[in-house]
Amino acid sequence: MDFLIQRDELIRALSRVQGIVEKRSTTPILSTVLMQAHEGGLRVTATDKAMTYVGNFVANVNIPGEVAVDAAHAFQVAKVLPSDVVALQLGENQRVDVRCGKSYYKLAGQAAGDFPPVPSFEASGWLSLQAADLRRIIDQTWFSIAPDDNRYGLNGAHLDAVESPAGPMLRMVGTDGNRLSWAQAPYTGNLAIGRRMLLPRKPLQEVRKMIDSFSGVVEIGFGERAAVVRFEGTTVHMRLLEAEFPNYKEVLPTSFKRRVVVDRDVFVDSLRRVSIFATDGAHSVRFAFGADGLVLTARKLDVGDSREEVPLDFAGEPIVMGFNARFIQEVLNVLTATRVTLELGDTLSPCILRPMDDENALFVVMPVRLD
Amino acid sequence: MDFLIQRDELIRALSRVQGIVEKRSTTPILSTVLMQAHEGGLRVTATDKAMTYVGNFVANVNIPGEVAVDAAHAFQVAKVLPSDVVALQLGENQRVDVRCGKSYYKLAGQAAGDFPPVPSFEASGWLSLQAADLRRIIDQTWFSIAPDDNRYGLNGAHLDAVESPAGPMLRMVGTDGNRLSWAQAPYTGNLAIGRRMLLPRKPLQEVRKMIDSFSGVVEIGFGERAAVVRFEGTTVHMRLLEAEFPNYKEVLPTSFKRRVVVDRDVFVDSLRRVSIFATDGAHSVRFAFGADGLVLTARKLDVGDSREEVPLDFAGEPIVMGFNARFIQEVLNVLTATRVTLELGDTLSPCILRPMDDENALFVVMPVRLD
Repeated sequence: MDFLIQRDELIRALSRVQGIVEKRSTTPILSTVLMQAHEGGLRVTATDKAMTYVGNFVANVNIPGEVAVDAAHAFQVAKVLPSDVVALQLGENQRVDVRCGKSYYKLAGQAAGDFPPVPSFEASGWLSLQAADLRRIIDQTWFSIAPDDNRYGLNGAHLDAVESPAGPMLRMVGTDGNRLSWAQAPYTGNLAIGRRMLLPRKPLQEVRKMIDSFSGVVEIGFGERAAVVRFEGTTVHMRLLEAEFPNYKEVLPTSFKRRVVVDRDVFVDSLRRVSIFATDGAHSVRFAFGADGLVLTARKLDVGDSREEVPLDFAGEPIVMGFNARFIQEVLNVLTATRVTLELGDTLSPCILRPMDDENALFVVMPVRLD
Repeated sequence: MDFLIQRDELIRALSRVQGIVEKRSTTPILSTVLMQAHEGGLRVTATDKAMTYVGNFVANVNIPGEVAVDAAHAFQVAKVLPSDVVALQLGENQRVDVRCGKSYYKLAGQAAGDFPPVPSFEASGWLSLQAADLRRIIDQTWFSIAPDDNRYGLNGAHLDAVESPAGPMLRMVGTDGNRLSWAQAPYTGNLAIGRRMLLPRKPLQEVRKMIDSFSGVVEIGFGERAAVVRFEGTTVHMRLLEAEFPNYKEVLPTSFKRRVVVDRDVFVDSLRRVSIFATDGAHSVRFAFGADGLVLTARKLDVGDSREEVPLDFAGEPIVMGFNARFIQEVLNVLTATRVTLELGDTLSPCILRPMDDENALFVVMPVRLD
């Protein structure tokens, strides 16, 4: 193996895999990235067994070859290299020689044959959507997914196909039992509905990072137990969660008694201010809705009290409710709408938040009991 | 107590004391800041017993009064206040009411009488120096002071008066036993030499932060067991360390066998690159000095090797030495000179670094044994 690569291209390749490899794995090969130099360039593969990333990068290959190197150490080296062009060569004992300007590194490598094979995959169908849409629906649901719940079905984002007046929509749903978010975007192609389509949290986050500045089309395919996300020379294979996602449509309130319209920015600022004294565990803040506005109050024992007033349009009887301030803040953070609606039932009924005049996202937050 | 204050002035006052108060003290009063509103404005006092800060700030006082409030909580509130003018009032049970725009906070306070009194102080003399000079000599020595050594004399910066061709100089010296830094600057007034003048590390760091953007004159006075730093409405009282500082002049080499001149920026970059594989404990890097240049190498077992070449002007026999790369980097980080000299003896003799053509700073780094 002997190839030349632009430093920035090498950094891009190695940064892609940092969130995927296991940093201190008991299986050292899972800490490595497989580098395969072939006539067309450099292919990079990383896996944590649950997800596998394969990316293609521009390189000038003199001698094809392959080797696995520790992903974190290789990235450390790439980031400090002094000039634009980097030469990588495979030496004896799987050693990788890295030369750049007057810098010279030798990296301990492992035989490519020890690297786990990329899982085979056959899609029952592929759908396409805009990267910007995929970014938005991940951002608007990801924060609601349970990070590590023993109700396994909550540890992923569920995909649904929805018919809407604007045509077929791909809907992503996440919930941790205390709140739920869904967001949808138009797609073309075949969702191959009818199976469990529960994408685990970590690969979804990695895909989100990878498409951060990508402006083209992303394809998603579903197989028997896996899904694949493809775009621009990149393939991410992920095992689907083998668990039941709750029937979220059943828990969504179908009517409301009170409706509030509030300015997003004012609401965000007031919540941030009042919640510095929200008690640490549940971040409880008292919400008193009335025709005169919303009064937010919080109390931290032996420390102090905070109080904020938020102007709003309110229809219905006054009501006092408690919410985890962080849950409401996280919803507001992923909305770009200037005005937000809240639909309320009784004191302990779920609250529905929506961006005003936008049917493509909906958020449910359960209230908390006030002491 | 009832006063109005600009939010930014309140933030400035409270940010000053955050590094001084003890965050989770078993003596709760040491977590508080004493606020005293008087005709002339607001006085703020904080102490950790070893150091005491008193600062004066602009405020519009209606009713004088005083109260102690938790410094961290008050700062948290100040930082999120929505508009420019803040009203503070003392209510019942030492409660402090904070009003700003539509925000209203109540902070639990403690009686001002419970706050420790400011230590009395009588200086045997005062010296003056420019804030910019004090910043420089603190920056150039502070990093060498032992953070917490049971040889107590190493836990502070020693002050000396030195006669130089440019007039009397205040010299600050710090050492942790493996390295030593001194830096000096012109002063006027009376250093009242003849006593132990060992300033502890923490108050020195706090003073450094306070003068960060100050461009006037700073006064330092020494009393029997304490020193006071004064500038622009601020007084910092600190207990001197009651310990013996080593006789550093005895350990400084008086001659050298080899002299190296190197470009600071090139040296910094090469060290940063090579030291990613310097072994974690001692950050050992191998320095091979010769007429052809300096070759830096490091090795991390089972990970890899790194090698850098640094061009230099070299006079003397070639030599191979080991250094803790971090110690050399920390010296280079506080130098603005474009060229740096290294004076070397034998393999295990101390190395002296100096900014070229500058007599006002000197750094000693002990080599490490290479395996």
